[in-house]
Amino acid sequence: MARRKPLSKIIPKRKSKFHKKKGKAPGTITYMGKREGGASVVNILEYNESSFKEHTPGNIDEIAAHKDPPEISWVDVIGLSDEIFIDKVGKRFGLNPLVLEDVVDTNQRPKIDEYEGYIFGVFKMLYINEEQQIVYEHVAMVMMENCVLVFQELEDDVFKGVRNRITSKSGRIRTRGADYLFFALLDAIVDNYFEVLEHLNEKIERLEEVVYDHPTPEVAQQIQEVKKEVLKIRRWIFPVKELISRLIDSENELVTKDTKVFLRDALDHSLEINESIQIYREMSMSLMEMYMSNMSNKMNEVMKVLTIMASIFIPLTFVAGIYGMNFEHIPELQWEYGYYYFWGLMITLFIGMMIYFKRKHWL
Amino acid sequence: MARRKPLSKIIPKRKSKFHKKKGKAPGTITYMGKREGGASVVNILEYNESSFKEHTPGNIDEIAAHKDPPEISWVDVIGLSDEIFIDKVGKRFGLNPLVLEDVVDTNQRPKIDEYEGYIFGVFKMLYINEEQQIVYEHVAMVMMENCVLVFQELEDDVFKGVRNRITSKSGRIRTRGADYLFFALLDAIVDNYFEVLEHLNEKIERLEEVVYDHPTPEVAQQIQEVKKEVLKIRRWIFPVKELISRLIDSENELVTKDTKVFLRDALDHSLEINESIQIYREMSMSLMEMYMSNMSNKMNEVMKVLTIMASIFIPLTFVAGIYGMNFEHIPELQWEYGYYYFWGLMITLFIGMMIYFKRKHWL
Amino acid sequence: MARRKPLSKIIPKRKSKFHKKKGKAPGTITYMGKREGGASVVNILEYNESSFKEHTPGNIDEIAAHKDPPEISWVDVIGLSDEIFIDKVGKRFGLNPLVLEDVVDTNQRPKIDEYEGYIFGVFKMLYINEEQQIVYEHVAMVMMENCVLVFQELEDDVFKGVRNRITSKSGRIRTRGADYLFFALLDAIVDNYFEVLEHLNEKIERLEEVVYDHPTPEVAQQIQEVKKEVLKIRRWIFPVKELISRLIDSENELVTKDTKVFLRDALDHSLEINESIQIYREMSMSLMEMYMSNMSNKMNEVMKVLTIMASIFIPLTFVAGIYGMNFEHIPELQWEYGYYYFWGLMITLFIGMMIYFKRKHWL
Amino acid sequence: MARRKPLSKIIPKRKSKFHKKKGKAPGTITYMGKREGGASVVNILEYNESSFKEHTPGNIDEIAAHKDPPEISWVDVIGLSDEIFIDKVGKRFGLNPLVLEDVVDTNQRPKIDEYEGYIFGVFKMLYINEEQQIVYEHVAMVMMENCVLVFQELEDDVFKGVRNRITSKSGRIRTRGADYLFFALLDAIVDNYFEVLEHLNEKIERLEEVVYDHPTPEVAQQIQEVKKEVLKIRRWIFPVKELISRLIDSENELVTKDTKVFLRDALDHSLEINESIQIYREMSMSLMEMYMSNMSNKMNEVMKVLTIMASIFIPLTFVAGIYGMNFEHIPELQWEYGYYYFWGLMITLFIGMMIYFKRKHWL
Amino acid sequence: MARRKPLSKIIPKRKSKFHKKKGKAPGTITYMGKREGGASVVNILEYNESSFKEHTPGNIDEIAAHKDPPEISWVDVIGLSDEIFIDKVGKRFGLNPLVLEDVVDTNQRPKIDEYEGYIFGVFKMLYINEEQQIVYEHVAMVMMENCVLVFQELEDDVFKGVRNRITSKSGRIRTRGADYLFFALLDAIVDNYFEVLEHLNEKIERLEEVVYDHPTPEVAQQIQEVKKEVLKIRRWIFPVKELISRLIDSENELVTKDTKVFLRDALDHSLEINESIQIYREMSMSLMEMYMSNMSNKMNEVMKVLTIMASIFIPLTFVAGIYGMNFEHIPELQWEYGYYYFWGLMITLFIGMMIYFKRKHWL
Repeated sequence: MARRKPLSKIIPKRKSKFHKKKGKAPGTITYMGKREGGASVVNILEYNESSFKEHTPGNIDEIAAHKDPPEISWVDVIGLSDEIFIDKVGKRFGLNPLVLEDVVDTNQRPKIDEYEGYIFGVFKMLYINEEQQIVYEHVAMVMMENCVLVFQELEDDVFKGVRNRITSKSGRIRTRGADYLFFALLDAIVDNYFEVLEHLNEKIERLEEVVYDHPTPEVAQQIQEVKKEVLKIRRWIFPVKELISRLIDSENELVTKDTKVFLRDALDHSLEINESIQIYREMSMSLMEMYMSNMSNKMNEVMKVLTIMASIFIPLTFVAGIYGMNFEHIPELQWEYGYYYFWGLMITLFIGMMIYFKRKHWL
Repeated sequence: MARRKPLSKIIPKRKSKFHKKKGKAPGTITYMGKREGGASVVNILEYNESSFKEHTPGNIDEIAAHKDPPEISWVDVIGLSDEIFIDKVGKRFGLNPLVLEDVVDTNQRPKIDEYEGYIFGVFKMLYINEEQQIVYEHVAMVMMENCVLVFQELEDDVFKGVRNRITSKSGRIRTRGADYLFFALLDAIVDNYFEVLEHLNEKIERLEEVVYDHPTPEVAQQIQEVKKEVLKIRRWIFPVKELISRLIDSENELVTKDTKVFLRDALDHSLEINESIQIYREMSMSLMEMYMSNMSNKMNEVMKVLTIMASIFIPLTFVAGIYGMNFEHIPELQWEYGYYYFWGLMITLFIGMMIYFKRKHWL
Repeated sequence: MARRKPLSKIIPKRKSKFHKKKGKAPGTITYMGKREGGASVVNILEYNESSFKEHTPGNIDEIAAHKDPPEISWVDVIGLSDEIFIDKVGKRFGLNPLVLEDVVDTNQRPKIDEYEGYIFGVFKMLYINEEQQIVYEHVAMVMMENCVLVFQELEDDVFKGVRNRITSKSGRIRTRGADYLFFALLDAIVDNYFEVLEHLNEKIERLEEVVYDHPTPEVAQQIQEVKKEVLKIRRWIFPVKELISRLIDSENELVTKDTKVFLRDALDHSLEINESIQIYREMSMSLMEMYMSNMSNKMNEVMKVLTIMASIFIPLTFVAGIYGMNFEHIPELQWEYGYYYFWGLMITLFIGMMIYFKRKHWL
Repeated sequence: MARRKPLSKIIPKRKSKFHKKKGKAPGTITYMGKREGGASVVNILEYNESSFKEHTPGNIDEIAAHKDPPEISWVDVIGLSDEIFIDKVGKRFGLNPLVLEDVVDTNQRPKIDEYEGYIFGVFKMLYINEEQQIVYEHVAMVMMENCVLVFQELEDDVFKGVRNRITSKSGRIRTRGADYLFFALLDAIVDNYFEVLEHLNEKIERLEEVVYDHPTPEVAQQIQEVKKEVLKIRRWIFPVKELISRLIDSENELVTKDTKVFLRDALDHSLEINESIQIYREMSMSLMEMYMSNMSNKMNEVMKVLTIMASIFIPLTFVAGIYGMNFEHIPELQWEYGYYYFWGLMITLFIGMMIYFKRKHWL
Repeated sequence: MARRKPLSKIIPKRKSKFHKKKGKAPGTITYMGKREGGASVVNILEYNESSFKEHTPGNIDEIAAHKDPPEISWVDVIGLSDEIFIDKVGKRFGLNPLVLEDVVDTNQRPKIDEYEGYIFGVFKMLYINEEQQIVYEHVAMVMMENCVLVFQELEDDVFKGVRNRITSKSGRIRTRGADYLFFALLDAIVDNYFEVLEHLNEKIERLEEVVYDHPTPEVAQQIQEVKKEVLKIRRWIFPVKELISRLIDSENELVTKDTKVFLRDALDHSLEINESIQIYREMSMSLMEMYMSNMSNKMNEVMKVLTIMASIFIPLTFVAGIYGMNFEHIPELQWEYGYYYFWGLMITLFIGMMIYFKRKHWL
């Protein structure tokens, strides 16, 4: 039964973190996601305007060699459960221990931090999986001079488009630097938020229809779940606008002026997304209001039926009761047509009542 | 039946965008509106203080010739579904690919961006069509030194006044530059928002009257629709104030000091519009509150009728029941005037009840 | 009947404006108020510390002569429907066409604009007329070096005090410049807002009393009207605080340091007014809440009466029904005192029920 | 009866002010409190580290002599209804007429203004009187180089502690200047707000208990009164934080750096007070919510009783009605044990119903 | 019974403070917690990279010797009820009297103040005790050049991790200065907030399940208690983010650049905590909404049962009543199969009603 289904959680349990990390020094790297056991896979794309290579190196030295490549390289680490491996990679790329802590902390709020020599960002990729549920995938990205290092939880889905543009040489991407690649990945993440919003939109529209015709308690529960989903999504998406805006204002030389023009475009999109989330929030509140008003309307209808039935038949029953009395002298009982007069009275009362209720617009 | 009518959507579906654009590089131009198939029509007005010409050039070279005219020219491109054509025009006028992307993206949030040599703005023209519905028409405007380039979805309605002022030489418009024309168009868009607000106002007033007399569920639904309409309008109108304000503060030399005085006037109007939208929001919330209070009042009335009927006739029926009993010794039944005493008792009880309910202000 | 009375409008209809102005260039002067037909009356007060003159000049040259008087002059134009006359006066005093547009636009939001050589302000004078309704009178004021030019819709009421102070030489006003006069008029407008707030306060207090004793739907409607009135008043009063504050910060040499001290006092008052409006807003919301809770309480009372009546008499009727049955063998019917036993049972049940409901605090 | 008691007013009537002041120039001094007729009493404390004097001078010259004393003097004027006297004192101490206007305006919003040579502050002292009601006493304080001039409405209560510290030489106060005295008085006012909050807290807690057990309409009214009291208190307390903060940032040489350290402490307290007021606001809203939910719960209980009674006895009455019919051939009536079978059926139905309602958790 | 349990208090009673402190000068040290009588225990950890010592000195001179140790020392004073001792320690460490006042004021809002030579901070440690209740422990920390002085109410729980890291030489802590120790303690406090949030989360989830199945008034009360708990927690946690942020921006030389990198991490966590609290607030409001909607749904169900029972049996009873009448001529009574026809009619009516209610989805 739908009612008993535990509601999806907005805020992930931190107990695990708490128990895992309690007493550890800050900067200790601890994977916060569901441990999936499998080792990380590293996928490297290396390209410039004319050439393009893809490989999956086996050992850490090979990977580290791509930190300062002659061309642009995109190092994509998939799977974050192998903390030791992540730690090794991070150290070879010269990352701060605090950065590595955030790389594996799947509860980390979206952020962009500037360090010497690299820019580090954490985001949530949101997409709809095959079971029509929203997936929240943690992704961390490091932009260096000629290299973008990406850490993601699952085999990617959202970055497919960027990869295609590189392999098929479409658009500007092959002619630009690592900052453009970083931006293109960020743009892919932000663009995908629209898909999630669309998913929410559909849910809200479906509820809107159902709330008028069948305002069952299940509908109320679903409305509440949408409200929670909006809260949860907002939590992960909302800060992104601020982050991009700060990146545009930053004077870091890793971000070229040309790329900033494109970042402004992504800023526009994230602004639009935040406004939409706000609107969904208000719409889900309206839905609940609508539900309550429909409930109250149903109640009115129920009460009207009761009142009409009772108001008509209780007086009639009273009259019938009178002539069921055993007084010795009830003159009407001896009348020849008494019974028919009785029916006349009944019908008159009945019609009078009907007219009264019609006038009150209860019928 | 009104109930099942799908509600108008606040946030346009992005799936189309998503599916169309997914994987494309930023800066790729994709028309987001309803594809209407027809080719774009280009309408050019060329004027200075003394002369005035209007023509509809057939080929792209003729159009491009108006980029740097000896006089002021207003190039009006109507119909955005022919992406290839738009792309060509844009390139001939030297527009950035990102600008062209926004020109055809009908979901683009209002914005004003300054580029080298031109200022680019996207707005929504809102007006009421003949079926008394609000039309949201996407319009993009580019202001260059001597030329204003306008892209709009439909044959225009809102710019008629500006065109008349040019042809009839009324007001200052013929004596001023392209920046004044740009401002005049923007002012025409903003001024028309008042018409839409007026339309909303009428709807709210009509609902206000009806909510007192016939608070049916359909009224509740209409109130919710007004709330959604306010949300939707706000989405497109709200950012305009900020944009105009930024244009006034801008030091771009394309905007002359004289025009800024007029922009301040448009700023005033958009401030007023934003305040009005806020008030409509609160009024539509009050409407819902009123609806709920009236529902609850109707319920009270229904309950009172039931209670009065039941309270009067249930005891009377009980008394009639007593004298319908078949006990062998019920002295009252043998009384000669027992039946008349019974009626006396009934009438006394009835009048007592009536007085009681009158005192309680239930009658 | 009170219910059908159309509610007072918060936002004035703009359709008139729209239809009147559509297609006109910005800066075209169009009177937005109710056309009252009559010509404007101009009243001039001329004074310095020692002398004082009052006259009502007939022609425009006489009026314009007061632009740069040897003394301080207060030119008061009453009646805004004669646009041609207003336009002439404005031109003679060297006002910008946009200023003149605002002078007659009765929907103009309060504002203070600084122009070269003069400061222009638009406000709403609010006062209570004899029918105890709030009047919203549009007033525009221009402060020049030695002259204050006032445009107002109706024969004034709010400025009476200032006029008295000038004629009776009380206070500082006769010894100060035009900026002090401008401030004194502004202060008179702001001070009068308190009267309107007081009027609102009384309405709210009256509703507060009535909402406890007679929460009829009419009361709910009146509460909603107060809410709308608060919204409407806020719209006209709220911006004033910001305007005065900007005037204080302004470095315009027309405003002397001495006058700024007094402006700060007016700022204080407008701050207090804004806080009060906010409080009235919350109080009117509380009123509605109270109304709903009282409605729900009345419902509870109604239901209790019904439940008590039904719970007592339905079982009794059942018992009476039993002994009205025609079974051949119902031993109780033959008992000599059966009927009296029956009454004993009835009374016992009745008393038991009464005790039960007393315990539940329903009686 | 509690219901009809007029509610305490949040915003004092300004009509009196309006009528008193209308037409008067700004800077005219008009006492706004309840006229208490009595003359003002002036109490002077004069102290330095070693000596201490207290006297109550009779004439104005004696008082004015304390403006520039060799030691620190605290001039305490109690009673503000004698406007002429206040005016004289003010002039002898060189105060601006606008300051004097605020001294006697009991509706003045809290404020701190810096003038040349002195700092002027207006506050509300809040305390609980013996009838357990909140008293709002207007107090104005002027800090000069060696003198603090205090104007207060009533014989003081809140400043007792400061006076004791001076007379008993406890703490730093005797060794510090006038700014420290000013701060100590301000601190006494702010500290006393805690007492008022505590009073509110108790009221809310009492309502919290009562709202669960006896949610009568009187409770709802009391909740609304607490809400109004919170609004009223907030109005007078809220601005204080901002004022102290501005005093700390001020570069006025009258405030020494040492005193600023203590002011920061007062700032802390006023911050805490503002947060508490906010929390009380939310708690009183929760109370109302709780009240409504309990009302609705009581209604549910009432309805359940009605439904159970009706559902059990209406069908039974119907069955009894059947066997009360006078059909010639009703076979059951002739059965020897028909009456007992009837009782068997009745009891079965009754038990069945009871089980049904038990299952529904209605019993 | 749960209902009568006094609710936990959000804002601690200040009366005690008021009575204790009234009339005392600011800077007087008064312990605000529950007096626990016991003497304070002082625990000192002294360490550098190579060595490590722990002792519990008996007299004040020994303690004061650690103010400027050759190594890093952590002086931990446990128990705040012995004001004289705290005062002595404070004076030996050169603390400002106002600081000492805050050390023992358990109602002090979280704050960080910079003084010459030391930084002073007050926080609340929140943790869950064995009875599953939230403990609010007051803690004050002073960071000097080589020493961190901690005052806490109870034997610590939250700092255990930091102590372990020092003794076990894990992490960086042994190689860093006092500022790092200060940060590590602050980080421990903030990290523990997650545990409290988790506790809240569980409560809300439990209520979410129960609100669907058994929306009793007890559940409403528990929801209100969670709302209060969120308010209370927010009060103590919310300011921390601002404080850390100010510490990062501070130019105080006691905080090294290296430590600031770690502070930024703590800032991140406090940001996340504040967002979570906000979400819990909204969730608890949704819970109440859900409760109300379920109540209203239960009411609907109750009313439906009543209406169905009444609508079916009242008309049937009426018909039975008719044939219980004693008219001399009721033809149906003489019919041979009259009684069976009657039953046919009854069953037809019954089935008709059932179909009607089925169609209305009431069954």
